[in-house]
Amino acid sequence: MTRSDFPAPPTSKSELEEGAAFTPRFDASGLVTAVVTDAEDGTVLMLAHMNAEALAMTLQTGIAHYWSRSRDRLWKKGETSGNLQHVIEMRTDCDQDAVWLRVRVAGHDATCHTGRRSCFYRAVFAAEGAARLAKDDEAPKFDADSMYGDQNRP
Amino acid sequence: MTRSDFPAPPTSKSELEEGAAFTPRFDASGLVTAVVTDAEDGTVLMLAHMNAEALAMTLQTGIAHYWSRSRDRLWKKGETSGNLQHVIEMRTDCDQDAVWLRVRVAGHDATCHTGRRSCFYRAVFAAEGAARLAKDDEAPKFDADSMYGDQNRP
Repeated sequence: MTRSDFPAPPTSKSELEEGAAFTPRFDASGLVTAVVTDAEDGTVLMLAHMNAEALAMTLQTGIAHYWSRSRDRLWKKGETSGNLQHVIEMRTDCDQDAVWLRVRVAGHDATCHTGRRSCFYRAVFAAEGAARLAKDDEAPKFDADSMYGDQNRP
Repeated sequence: MTRSDFPAPPTSKSELEEGAAFTPRFDASGLVTAVVTDAEDGTVLMLAHMNAEALAMTLQTGIAHYWSRSRDRLWKKGETSGNLQHVIEMRTDCDQDAVWLRVRVAGHDATCHTGRRSCFYRAVFAAEGAARLAKDDEAPKFDADSMYGDQNRP
């Protein structure tokens, strides 16, 4: 599956923004950005990227697939950990270069490779001289080291 | 303000993921991705990008600033429309290349330049031959044409 599986974006801005055709605007690397939230409570779980194949697989199977930029391959999220993402709804934005996936996470309900529910487990706050991070008080839902080993990547 | 206003990312993966220093990992264009949600109900309002100056201005003022890639300049969101974003909380993800802003939107509570509350006003669904879009039933909260004129950009 390639980007030719999706129609080319229209040249008309109003068609792109108001039309009924899904014409994703892939960037120079052939990717769109995906925001992933918990369908129940709206927590932002992760941010990832999808190429045409990942988009098509996600639409066909209802299970979220991404393009792993670090491993340079299609990535069925949760294939190792069991934390598959069932897509409740996919949405796209005005200029169709991003998608929003509302998902229900299976397995441990842990999306982050660190074993946490969300990758966004730290708040940023302004402090004297530099910004600092405050970590959520949350125990990992699985042992990331034993799950992924040295590689420790999702 | 430049990226040197923020410490360079640590070489240690555990420090990057578990540390208390905010060390944003800017991409080759000097940007991190920002996911913006409504602090009340979790709706994803938009996706944007921030350079070091936008990050610093946002932290200093509590009002969301971005880097407009189309206009190639700092962008105080809502400076034209009045739909300023008051940042309730900023979070960052495991590898610190993205931020999540939970905001309260002033003015018309319309984030999209089309006059809608969210840029993600269309659902994507699989259909015979191609994926299609279904638009939300929502009247624009302001007249985008008269607000922005021909340019019609936020």
